[in-house]
Amino acid sequence: MPETLSATYHVRGDAGTIEARARAIAVEQSVEMPLDAITDARVRDEIVGKVVAIEEVSRGLFAVRVALAAATVGSDAGQLLNMLFGNTSMHDDVTLHDADIPAGLTAAFDGPAHGLAALRARVGAGPRALTCSALKPQGLAPAALADLARRFADGGIDYIKDDHGLADQVYSPFAARVTAIAQALRASGTAACYIPSLCGDLDAMRAQIAMARDDGLDAVMLAPMVAGVATLRRLRRDYPQLIIMAHPAMAGASRIAPPLLMGKLFRLLGADAVVFPNYGGRFGYSPATCRALAAAALREWHGLRAAIPVPAGGMTPGRVPELLEFFGADTMLLIGGGLLAARERLTEETAAFVKAVKDYADAR
Amino acid sequence: MPETLSATYHVRGDAGTIEARARAIAVEQSVEMPLDAITDARVRDEIVGKVVAIEEVSRGLFAVRVALAAATVGSDAGQLLNMLFGNTSMHDDVTLHDADIPAGLTAAFDGPAHGLAALRARVGAGPRALTCSALKPQGLAPAALADLARRFADGGIDYIKDDHGLADQVYSPFAARVTAIAQALRASGTAACYIPSLCGDLDAMRAQIAMARDDGLDAVMLAPMVAGVATLRRLRRDYPQLIIMAHPAMAGASRIAPPLLMGKLFRLLGADAVVFPNYGGRFGYSPATCRALAAAALREWHGLRAAIPVPAGGMTPGRVPELLEFFGADTMLLIGGGLLAARERLTEETAAFVKAVKDYADAR
Repeated sequence: MPETLSATYHVRGDAGTIEARARAIAVEQSVEMPLDAITDARVRDEIVGKVVAIEEVSRGLFAVRVALAAATVGSDAGQLLNMLFGNTSMHDDVTLHDADIPAGLTAAFDGPAHGLAALRARVGAGPRALTCSALKPQGLAPAALADLARRFADGGIDYIKDDHGLADQVYSPFAARVTAIAQALRASGTAACYIPSLCGDLDAMRAQIAMARDDGLDAVMLAPMVAGVATLRRLRRDYPQLIIMAHPAMAGASRIAPPLLMGKLFRLLGADAVVFPNYGGRFGYSPATCRALAAAALREWHGLRAAIPVPAGGMTPGRVPELLEFFGADTMLLIGGGLLAARERLTEETAAFVKAVKDYADAR
Repeated sequence: MPETLSATYHVRGDAGTIEARARAIAVEQSVEMPLDAITDARVRDEIVGKVVAIEEVSRGLFAVRVALAAATVGSDAGQLLNMLFGNTSMHDDVTLHDADIPAGLTAAFDGPAHGLAALRARVGAGPRALTCSALKPQGLAPAALADLARRFADGGIDYIKDDHGLADQVYSPFAARVTAIAQALRASGTAACYIPSLCGDLDAMRAQIAMARDDGLDAVMLAPMVAGVATLRRLRRDYPQLIIMAHPAMAGASRIAPPLLMGKLFRLLGADAVVFPNYGGRFGYSPATCRALAAAALREWHGLRAAIPVPAGGMTPGRVPELLEFFGADTMLLIGGGLLAARERLTEETAAFVKAVKDYADAR
C-alpha cells in the first residue's frame, strides 16, 4: 500500500464481534460498498481501508486502528475530516480517538504560520505564559466593547479576543465594532493584541479580514467546526501574516477526542492558538483530556510550529498558580467572565491576573 | 423581548438541579458570562437566553426550552448553529433536540430553490417516488465511474450522485471525472441527472460548479457539516438555478437530533434533497428518527419549499415496497452498493429497482 494515514477509533462492542465491526468501519471510511462488488484490483489493494490493530482498552471498549490511503485525502482539509470520520460520525458506538498523519500529508497543510514563539514575541512577553481575556456579552454596542478592551489593555493583558458570540449583528456590526476596539487599543499605548471573531462564509470572512487589517489588526479568530475546516485551511494559506486563533464551538466533547481535533488537527490546519474548555470550569473535559490536548498542540510533529493551548471556560484569577503548575509556561490563560465580574474594578482585576502570571514566572 | 428563536435541549440530570442547569445553558448559549457582571439593561432584558419550559421526558432526561434573541443570529447560517449549540456541544449531558425558528428568521435564509416538485419535474417522474444511486468506490478512474453512470442510466434511474468520498484526487480529478460522467449520460439519451460531490473550500466549490455547468450539469452535492453550513447557504444564494443535495457526513447520530439538523436546518439553508442513513441498513437511526426527519423535510413550514428526504446507507432493491410503505411517495430512494453488487448485471438490477418503484406507484 502507498502512503497511509491511520485513524484509531474507540468502539463499544464485544470480543466476538469486534473484528467484523472493525472491518465494517474500515469499509465505511473508504469504499463504502460491498467488497465483493469491487472489480478493480488497485482499489481493493490500495484504497479499501485496512484494520491494522484491535486492542481491548477496557471491558467492552476496543481501540481499532484503520489504515487509509493518503491519496484519498489529497490536500483538502474537509476531505481529511471526511476520511477520518465522515460516515462513521453517524454511528453511536464509535468515537474517533486519534489519527496518525504521515509527514507527506502534513506537508500538504502547513500548520501554524506563527505559533507559540511568535505569539510571545508579538506582545513582548518573553518565556512566560500569555494572558488573554474576552469581550462580552454580545448585545453591547461597539463603544461599550471598546471601553472594556481599553480597560483590559490598561490592566496589561496580552491578548483580547471577541466572545465567539460576537458576529455581525445589527446592534454591533463587525466593521463598527472592530474599528472602535482597534482605536481604543491604539489609544491605550499598550502592546495588547485584539483578536476579532470572524463569521459567515469564506467571502464574508475575507471582507472582515480586510476591515481588520485596515484597522491595523493582525489576528483573527474563527470556529473551524462551524466555518468548516477547509475555511481555516484557506485563511491560513491566503493570509500567512495573520495570527489565527481557533475557537471550539461545535467541536463537541466526545465524538472526536478533543486532543486530536483541537490539539492536532486545528494545529495542522493552521491555528496558532487553540481555545478549549478547561477542566474545573463550566465544562466537563477532564484534566487528562486537557493535558493531552495541550501536549498535542505543543509537541514536535513533522516540523510544524507549536500552537499555543488556551485553556478557558470559567477560569478565575485565583487559579493562576494551579493552572500554570498544570500546563507550564507554554500556555495562554484565558479569563473572561472571571475578570468582567469585577465590573468597575476591571482594570485592577486584570492587572492582578497579569501580575499573578508574571510573578509565577519570576519565581521559577 | 423582540423576536426570538427557541432551542429545545435534552438534558440528563435530576429534578433537584435541572432548573439551575437549564439556566446555565441559557446563559452559555447567549451571553456566556456571570449575569451579575452585565451592567447593560438591554442586554439583560433582550439578549440573555431565557428558560421558557422544563419538562421531564423520561426518568432523568429533561426537555429544556430556551428562548434566544433572533437578533443575535442576524442572517448568518454559522451563527444560527453557533447560537443553537456552539458551546453547549461541548457538554456531554446535553443534546440539541429541536429548534423553533420564527418566520422572520427563516426569511433571512430561503429554503430550497427547487424542492420536491421540481426534482420530480426535472426527471419527468410524475407523482411517484424518485430513484437514485451512487458512483463508487472511490479509487476508480473517471472512465470506470462514467461506465457505471451509463449503466445506471440505461437501467432508468432518475438521479446518480457521486459517493461523498469522491473528491479531487489525483487518480480521479474532479474535472476529468465530471466531464466523463456528463458525457456518458448525454450519450445515454436518458433524463438521468448527475449530482457531483463538491469538496474543498468555497472557492474550490465555485470552481467545481463552473466546471459542472460547463458540462451542462445542474445539480451538486455537499456535506454541510464538513463544508460549513454557511457554505451551503452561500451556494444556495449565489446559484439558485442549481439543485443542491445535502450529504450527512459528520452530521453525527445523537448530539443534534437528525430530524432537526438534516430535516429542518439543511432544508432551511437551501438543500433540495437531504440524504440520511435509513433504519435497517448499515446505520443505527431508528424508524422513528427517520420518519421524523422525513416529516421535517416535507412539512409546511413558513412557506419554504419541501426538501425531498433521501433514505440511504445499505438499502436493497428488495426493500422497495417496505420503504415506500413507510415513507410514502414523497421520497427519493438511494441504493448504491445494493445495485453495484450485481456487477455485470448492474443495468438489469437498476431496471428492476426502477420498475419496483413504478409498479408500487401504479398499484396505488
